[in-house]
Amino acid sequence: MTIRSHTYERFVEMVKEFHGYDAPGVIIGGFMVDLAYRSLTEEGLFDVLCETPKCLPDAVQLLTPCTIGNGWLTIINVGRFALTLYDKHTGNGVRVFIDTPRLEMWPEIKAWFLKLTPKGEQDEERLLKEIREAEDTIMSVRQVKVAKRILEKSRRGGFAVCPHCGEAYPSADGPICLGCADDNLFDSVD
Amino acid sequence: MTIRSHTYERFVEMVKEFHGYDAPGVIIGGFMVDLAYRSLTEEGLFDVLCETPKCLPDAVQLLTPCTIGNGWLTIINVGRFALTLYDKHTGNGVRVFIDTPRLEMWPEIKAWFLKLTPKGEQDEERLLKEIREAEDTIMSVRQVKVAKRILEKSRRGGFAVCPHCGEAYPSADGPICLGCADDNLFDSVD
Repeated sequence: MTIRSHTYERFVEMVKEFHGYDAPGVIIGGFMVDLAYRSLTEEGLFDVLCETPKCLPDAVQLLTPCTIGNGWLTIINVGRFALTLYDKHTGNGVRVFIDTPRLEMWPEIKAWFLKLTPKGEQDEERLLKEIREAEDTIMSVRQVKVAKRILEKSRRGGFAVCPHCGEAYPSADGPICLGCADDNLFDSVD
Repeated sequence: MTIRSHTYERFVEMVKEFHGYDAPGVIIGGFMVDLAYRSLTEEGLFDVLCETPKCLPDAVQLLTPCTIGNGWLTIINVGRFALTLYDKHTGNGVRVFIDTPRLEMWPEIKAWFLKLTPKGEQDEERLLKEIREAEDTIMSVRQVKVAKRILEKSRRGGFAVCPHCGEAYPSADGPICLGCADDNLFDSVD
């Protein structure tokens, strides 16, 4: 059992280092990324779409070249624990998701995933044991085609200096920057 | 000159490894994170707010405990190259931003930052040289208070299984999941 060529133990160490602790969601995410790569029918470079910002993006950032900052990882939060590896030109790819009925065999994973147990009452040790034993058997894969609107990432045009805050911003955003237009990122300092 | 205790050379290596290449924005972001930490008036743990998804979040993820997946890094894209380290309870923190007038001394950085030069005509070597020489002199710091609405992160309640796709989703999202309600993440597979 390896996760993108890392041993399970090594991957858990990587998760602790990057994510701060051995979060169940990131470890399951590791199995999901691994399954996605094994399910690809072509070689090449792939972008990633995550359907939740919780945990899963960190597995992607640890195990693929895709990060939030380089733009190859896109998060669209529809609240599903699923990721898609896809060709950025055609949108063709594979989507890996948690296959809910398959959780029946794994009571701790099911209780954690569906939030059936209050966080304080979770048995972390049993949960991690089940995750390790379940490997990729709690997930499924589908061939998908990512929608064109997602492939067409905005090409920013020029930059302007906002007359309000004096900072640079994409001029396509309008006569002042979105930070000043919405002006609700910060409250006045006491 | 160190960036959060890393030598400049070491940080550039970390950027290449994580981000894929020595992106100017991530390297400048490193100086911004370093300046933010040096500007804090209290010790403690801090969340981070990034005002752009481009490059800057990767500097944050490399140099702080905050990642997208663990929720301590929030991105609100208002198109400004700025980050804020803040106390998650009070919102008090420091915001570091590129101080546009200070770019006058650094023609390559200015041309890159304001996209005055087409990408193919940029002199990458001179740009990185200027970034290294400029260090944190192109940025400024302000004390800020992050708005309450940003501090009040959504506490998800329970989970339900979507009757449409059969996957788990936050039940607060409605009778079906947002992926099915919007249903425009994927086109039909050819």
